[in-house]
Amino acid sequence: MGIKLTILGYNSAIPTAFSHPTSQLLNINERYILIDCGEGTQVQLRRAKIKFSKINHIFISHLHGDHVFGLVGLISTFQLLGRKKELQIFGPVGIEDFIMNQLRHTKAHCNYPLTFHELDHQDPQLIYEDKKILVYTIPLNHRIYCNGYLVKEKAKLRHLKIEEIEKYPEIQRTDYLSLKQGNDFISSSGQVIPNAELTSGASQPESYAFCSDTMYKPELAELLRDVSCMYHEATFMHESQDRAIATGHSTAIEAATIARDANAGSLIIGHFSNRYMDLNPLLEEAQSVFPNTHLPKMLLTLDIKDLVNAGV
Amino acid sequence: MGIKLTILGYNSAIPTAFSHPTSQLLNINERYILIDCGEGTQVQLRRAKIKFSKINHIFISHLHGDHVFGLVGLISTFQLLGRKKELQIFGPVGIEDFIMNQLRHTKAHCNYPLTFHELDHQDPQLIYEDKKILVYTIPLNHRIYCNGYLVKEKAKLRHLKIEEIEKYPEIQRTDYLSLKQGNDFISSSGQVIPNAELTSGASQPESYAFCSDTMYKPELAELLRDVSCMYHEATFMHESQDRAIATGHSTAIEAATIARDANAGSLIIGHFSNRYMDLNPLLEEAQSVFPNTHLPKMLLTLDIKDLVNAGV
Repeated sequence: MGIKLTILGYNSAIPTAFSHPTSQLLNINERYILIDCGEGTQVQLRRAKIKFSKINHIFISHLHGDHVFGLVGLISTFQLLGRKKELQIFGPVGIEDFIMNQLRHTKAHCNYPLTFHELDHQDPQLIYEDKKILVYTIPLNHRIYCNGYLVKEKAKLRHLKIEEIEKYPEIQRTDYLSLKQGNDFISSSGQVIPNAELTSGASQPESYAFCSDTMYKPELAELLRDVSCMYHEATFMHESQDRAIATGHSTAIEAATIARDANAGSLIIGHFSNRYMDLNPLLEEAQSVFPNTHLPKMLLTLDIKDLVNAGV
Repeated sequence: MGIKLTILGYNSAIPTAFSHPTSQLLNINERYILIDCGEGTQVQLRRAKIKFSKINHIFISHLHGDHVFGLVGLISTFQLLGRKKELQIFGPVGIEDFIMNQLRHTKAHCNYPLTFHELDHQDPQLIYEDKKILVYTIPLNHRIYCNGYLVKEKAKLRHLKIEEIEKYPEIQRTDYLSLKQGNDFISSSGQVIPNAELTSGASQPESYAFCSDTMYKPELAELLRDVSCMYHEATFMHESQDRAIATGHSTAIEAATIARDANAGSLIIGHFSNRYMDLNPLLEEAQSVFPNTHLPKMLLTLDIKDLVNAGV
């Protein structure tokens, strides 16, 4: 249960010998979601020992190479591995032609269903929902059309107080779902047993917001209010704010300001410019505004709960 | 002088945590030539500490992903690094649209000249020539249109015997080039001094043949006669010859047979199927036919001369 995050790459623009462009894997109640897919992502997935067959949904923020050049390779590898299950890809308008033209030229026509959901709206939208999770776009402010993604667990069920329930022989197992959903029990004689007597509160649903690439956009704080964990790009130190503005990026101070104003549970910063060999000054700058800020930990699977608790 | 080879990747099809798809860099008299460009090639170039700005010519054998998915990333990185020099790309018809469509969607229009030479002929052709080198196509027999590349140093100049030359005061420095080219010296009085008295033989030009991907194609032996070093794919052990035929690939025995029949100076085998964890059986099989066979050495820059000498 809960959300687990594996960061596969967090560097900007130019891959170097020991850094990797943006990609992250979320495991939400055993649903595996890939967000962004820079060159080399499939190799990073291997190194993190993540089963390729578990990934059924890929969300691409924007069509800059460092977020998408690894996608065609991953799609081809799925095919070579004999995938049969549908793969759903969400991303900006153009992503389907971007991928399909490459598959055509490389004669790698997929033998599994490949479904594209092209996005072009300017407002936050619910773009994916199943029994357990919700995914919304987070419109960002970059040089080209770009969305972050807010991934949420659905409201969870209340916990049964079995000892209390056993005091009422009339309550059957078939009534349990209704109780978990918060309904009172009404006996055949019309007696109302309040739900609060029979159940205790549900666990808080967790949520994760991916925000890269973007200029400082203060409205994000309201949109992402109380998010459990926020990843926000911090390409530059604040002393290079002019460069951040010119290139459509944020500074570490700005990332932390969004997290603080959103009352986020925790913040991970990333997408650092290659100019920074030592990332600690970026971390310290962000922590001066939002103490529960973390640097990304490459290939390590983190429980969102632990990141939130680190700040409590 | 001579040819130096750096292998950046030599695995087939699916990249794994510790293997890399095909790419090789040749340094011929300080001309840097990249052959094939699988996903992650730019990172391998970094690891091999090769200056990106030295690469002006890229040759792509065929449009299968494991030979070309890294090309757009490299082209984009050249742009981000502020390249101004022309980059020439040779490859099958379709390669220009394959790349340009990706650059269009990712808004990465090159600010340096990018010239494509699309190939569709079925016979060996001279496709590149400058003062010092020649590059020919090697038509291969794969599932899709595919060329290997034969890279040759031009015939070299003879070496001056300075002590002999000094016996003839009439010979000026301005006569040296003519002597190096093999001409006799004729004095003002009409006396002929034979070239052999004034110079010694030129070094043998070196040559390198890249042959991947291909089924066994015996005609290659004649085409590549006396090549200094041959790289030939050996995707399978000979016991899996049926699989090699079905997929348009060669076995280790077949690669070695081509090298033997061509009287090659040395052979490097590669493009191994991921099924082989231990490569030594492939090496031993090839050596049983052609003893001076080598496994590729990742990221190590080898002098072709040394590989040839290993077999002498």
